[in-house]
Amino acid sequence: MIRIAIIGAGRIGQIHAANLVQNVNAEVVYISDVIESAAVSLASRCSATVVSVDHLMNDASVDAVVIASSTDTHADLVEQAAAAGKSIFCEKPLDLSSERAAACISVAEKHGVLLSIGFNRRHDPSFSRLKNEIDAGTIGNVEVVSITSRDPSPPPVEYLKRSGGLFRDMMIHDFDMGRWLLGEEPNQVFAIGSVMSDPRIKAAADIDTAIAILKTASGRMCQITNSRRCDYGYDQRIEVFGSKGMVRADNQTKTKVEVASASGFATEPALPFFLERYANAYRIQLDKFLRVVSGENLELPGGPDGLRALQLADAAQQSLETGLPVKA
Amino acid sequence: MIRIAIIGAGRIGQIHAANLVQNVNAEVVYISDVIESAAVSLASRCSATVVSVDHLMNDASVDAVVIASSTDTHADLVEQAAAAGKSIFCEKPLDLSSERAAACISVAEKHGVLLSIGFNRRHDPSFSRLKNEIDAGTIGNVEVVSITSRDPSPPPVEYLKRSGGLFRDMMIHDFDMGRWLLGEEPNQVFAIGSVMSDPRIKAAADIDTAIAILKTASGRMCQITNSRRCDYGYDQRIEVFGSKGMVRADNQTKTKVEVASASGFATEPALPFFLERYANAYRIQLDKFLRVVSGENLELPGGPDGLRALQLADAAQQSLETGLPVKA
Amino acid sequence: MIRIAIIGAGRIGQIHAANLVQNVNAEVVYISDVIESAAVSLASRCSATVVSVDHLMNDASVDAVVIASSTDTHADLVEQAAAAGKSIFCEKPLDLSSERAAACISVAEKHGVLLSIGFNRRHDPSFSRLKNEIDAGTIGNVEVVSITSRDPSPPPVEYLKRSGGLFRDMMIHDFDMGRWLLGEEPNQVFAIGSVMSDPRIKAAADIDTAIAILKTASGRMCQITNSRRCDYGYDQRIEVFGSKGMVRADNQTKTKVEVASASGFATEPALPFFLERYANAYRIQLDKFLRVVSGENLELPGGPDGLRALQLADAAQQSLETGLPVKA
Amino acid sequence: MIRIAIIGAGRIGQIHAANLVQNVNAEVVYISDVIESAAVSLASRCSATVVSVDHLMNDASVDAVVIASSTDTHADLVEQAAAAGKSIFCEKPLDLSSERAAACISVAEKHGVLLSIGFNRRHDPSFSRLKNEIDAGTIGNVEVVSITSRDPSPPPVEYLKRSGGLFRDMMIHDFDMGRWLLGEEPNQVFAIGSVMSDPRIKAAADIDTAIAILKTASGRMCQITNSRRCDYGYDQRIEVFGSKGMVRADNQTKTKVEVASASGFATEPALPFFLERYANAYRIQLDKFLRVVSGENLELPGGPDGLRALQLADAAQQSLETGLPVKA
Repeated sequence: MIRIAIIGAGRIGQIHAANLVQNVNAEVVYISDVIESAAVSLASRCSATVVSVDHLMNDASVDAVVIASSTDTHADLVEQAAAAGKSIFCEKPLDLSSERAAACISVAEKHGVLLSIGFNRRHDPSFSRLKNEIDAGTIGNVEVVSITSRDPSPPPVEYLKRSGGLFRDMMIHDFDMGRWLLGEEPNQVFAIGSVMSDPRIKAAADIDTAIAILKTASGRMCQITNSRRCDYGYDQRIEVFGSKGMVRADNQTKTKVEVASASGFATEPALPFFLERYANAYRIQLDKFLRVVSGENLELPGGPDGLRALQLADAAQQSLETGLPVKA
Repeated sequence: MIRIAIIGAGRIGQIHAANLVQNVNAEVVYISDVIESAAVSLASRCSATVVSVDHLMNDASVDAVVIASSTDTHADLVEQAAAAGKSIFCEKPLDLSSERAAACISVAEKHGVLLSIGFNRRHDPSFSRLKNEIDAGTIGNVEVVSITSRDPSPPPVEYLKRSGGLFRDMMIHDFDMGRWLLGEEPNQVFAIGSVMSDPRIKAAADIDTAIAILKTASGRMCQITNSRRCDYGYDQRIEVFGSKGMVRADNQTKTKVEVASASGFATEPALPFFLERYANAYRIQLDKFLRVVSGENLELPGGPDGLRALQLADAAQQSLETGLPVKA
Repeated sequence: MIRIAIIGAGRIGQIHAANLVQNVNAEVVYISDVIESAAVSLASRCSATVVSVDHLMNDASVDAVVIASSTDTHADLVEQAAAAGKSIFCEKPLDLSSERAAACISVAEKHGVLLSIGFNRRHDPSFSRLKNEIDAGTIGNVEVVSITSRDPSPPPVEYLKRSGGLFRDMMIHDFDMGRWLLGEEPNQVFAIGSVMSDPRIKAAADIDTAIAILKTASGRMCQITNSRRCDYGYDQRIEVFGSKGMVRADNQTKTKVEVASASGFATEPALPFFLERYANAYRIQLDKFLRVVSGENLELPGGPDGLRALQLADAAQQSLETGLPVKA
Repeated sequence: MIRIAIIGAGRIGQIHAANLVQNVNAEVVYISDVIESAAVSLASRCSATVVSVDHLMNDASVDAVVIASSTDTHADLVEQAAAAGKSIFCEKPLDLSSERAAACISVAEKHGVLLSIGFNRRHDPSFSRLKNEIDAGTIGNVEVVSITSRDPSPPPVEYLKRSGGLFRDMMIHDFDMGRWLLGEEPNQVFAIGSVMSDPRIKAAADIDTAIAILKTASGRMCQITNSRRCDYGYDQRIEVFGSKGMVRADNQTKTKVEVASASGFATEPALPFFLERYANAYRIQLDKFLRVVSGENLELPGGPDGLRALQLADAAQQSLETGLPVKA
């Protein structure tokens, strides 16, 4: 039984808590949050105790920490947990600064602890099957990866102002998927973007619609398109084209019902947002983390993956600002 | 070049004429119809001559006749054409009476002429691929054939009164498909039916909705469902289940466009009716007929197929009337 | 918190236990099974106590019993639980004898207890959406219900010998779905069947492939096809055709991945069997049962639904044996 | 009846000839080709006469010319036909040089003749329905156009050497579709490319795989991906994302047959190449051309559309060579 402390009792912390409670290998012992009431409420559902961060870090019986607090606290908490010898699961991004993220990865490495980043999409059954098919040679050599990723509606402008911008906040997931599926490191990024949905996003110096293209040294390519607003649900599709064929993962729906009428055949919208679309991915992600903590040898996205995705996001942001392709 | 006379210048005669005009192996030389103006109009589009039935039967240069006149004339015309030594393509059914149909087949056989029946669906690319997959062993032994066949809207009640009833007029196509795909002769029919769309159909002693199930001696089964009214287009689907898998042919649409909106994903209705759905089948059907006339050895539905489908329709009608299964 | 005793610690009892453990409104207090070790194993996973049936029936603190033992014990246990005033969830069928089932329903009614039958498919999100669309008038009046239900592979012949036959053991689920979706009571059944997969099934006087058609007084129809063996997964599809359109629920798969190669586009098989296909339905089913126990007013399949499905299965069996349609 | 001369009796000339022969408003009177035998063969199928280019240009009874000869002859022939007052249908591109193309458009304008360019895809029923849905406001404002276009296999290297490169020879169709569907003029192009399929393509200084992204002044974007080799058929898909939804056109297949087996569900590859995929588009294209010649007012891609697509291709080529985005 792995004893776990969760830092952050917000939406994502609650998802992780619910998955940990149902996992027979885990016991949630501590919850910590800057908002006391949030911590209390979540702790009661987990039969856990509310404590301070220092308390849980200093309790030697805690095996692992799940960091789901606000982004600006991630790097410090990772370093503190590393120093305390805990296995670490940290939500993305490690930090909005690549330098800070790199420093914190070094600390984790120095202490020899497991540091896994919450790139939940790698654990989605459809997307991990894409990866498996590629690795099995089903489509030959990867040539072009195409990622479509559209949120149902923009977050509040206040959130956007602190988010680091679309590339670091939203497309960072897609940069990770692109790297992972390309099977080679991109070394160039070109990005364009616009504001289409809400002029306040422009006022916040951000964009809501973007395309980025990546290229690797050997010539593999990746195109990513993002939108902050999508009427037909949470649009999450990936296609990988190769020398012997293609694999693609389409959107998911709640039911398989089709309605036929004089106007044609109608199916329901895509699942509404990440909580529904990636419910399985969140569960599998933590299960794998626990299994690695228990000694199993499984691939998990680690600190360097988090850093590299951030560097690609930085490069995309720079490309947007300069209008030029950027080495990454 | 095969010289052809067309008897019947109505809707179906016009389809055959258009396909023959574009076929490089055929020359339409004569058109005959009881309605003079219809014959003249069609003849002008084919660069053909309007003549009487006797004239075209007596012209030794005519190689083949296409019989597309009203059902009650089919049997007599087949016999006349057989006596004249013509190759014969006759629309279904040969006759509404199985006895009359059988007699007319005997005449054709006695004269040794080709007699092919217009079961156009056997030539549909999707349905003939079903047959090819079955013959290739893709699904192992055929076990259950399921046929869904729904017209967009009922014909005029006046037409229904002379039609012989739903089983002989509409489901006869499906009985032929069932026999063909089962690969064994059904020997029992049970049928139920209702009037759902229009009470005048009941007044005409007919039905508009029906299910029939067929069984062969070895235990293979076929279920057929028909409706005379269908809001989402001409519903034409077949599924064949076997010991190693299943093959099915879905409806067809004009385009492959999908529209996504807040209410979900929408595609267009099925093609509206048989002219659109079986346009290719009609063309291929006559092309195959011409090739057989030219000496090629191809499978074509013949007189006995027409008779057998009629006998199954008779059995279904008897089952509906008696409420009991009927040997066929 | 509803205190629950589970009778039967086999496969289906374990599913119910797992769902109850995760339900915040339920507490599994007792497990009983004729096989002691099975009871002990399941109890340990639920933090429950192993007791005899009499013990749990006599414990007034038990609110509800879940009966998941072998079919021949259902009726007696329902009567015992009814007499003890428990709310009852009983797996289908109540009994293989309609008379016995009817008697046991009377007992439950006399004691005024809730008796719900485990027709899990009514709770499947896709099938319950079909029902909702029908009730909302989306397809107008229901005319023809078509149900395709195929198991991946036959159960052991020993099981089949005690099962009551395909109609009572397997198609009983589809009879329930047919009644439910028709919205009217069928009053006639005709059924045909064969042995296609394994001659030992014939030796056991059972069949493995069948079609049944039902008809209501107003003329609505339902066709059901079953097979005990299906190569492409657990085939569970329903289509409802009505006066204004059609709704259908297709099979479900684990992922939405499609592989394109020179041979075409390939998607994965249907989910393997009922544990996977109806995982959500099992969860929702017990959740609804608990909510009704708690006083909510929700539609649940009850004793009379179980009896009526059994009567239709009896009629189908009689039709198979006599070769005639049977009033039901 | 419009009297037409066809210049070029190769593959594309033959397609146009076949469509014209079946068009009731057209009469093919002359065929001209530098290869005498090709001209003779095609003329015999059209009941036309083989003549020189000068002859057909000087025959005042010729209403229209269809230019389907090699690319390097297009501009001269357009100018000659314009001077002769003929209506002109010219295959794309007008010329590999934008300057030459512009000059030749000026000549056509000066003579006031109709000049239509063979962008057949605008006439594809699926793609023209995309355009109609956009124009009808179905998806609100267009934001991102995504075009996937992959040929089944590369042309001979000898052809590539004279082709002007992938952007001018292949992606030019997609540039035209992008402009048409964006509804605004792109003013910037960025393109990347690689050689993936055959090193001889590299030796010929060309690429076989590419991504280009376009942007308009208002911020609309278009991403295009091309490959010269695709295992699963001729991959031709377009998706248009807008402020209120999305429309997309998927690939087309010959039949709607699906095969189910233990490995899943399989459908056939996409149609093999442009002859099959765009058969309807070629027919509709010439039919519309003829109707415009007859005085109808229909939208047809004209000389400036050809020139603009060529300028975008030039910009993409320059972007590939410089590694920088290019104003266009």
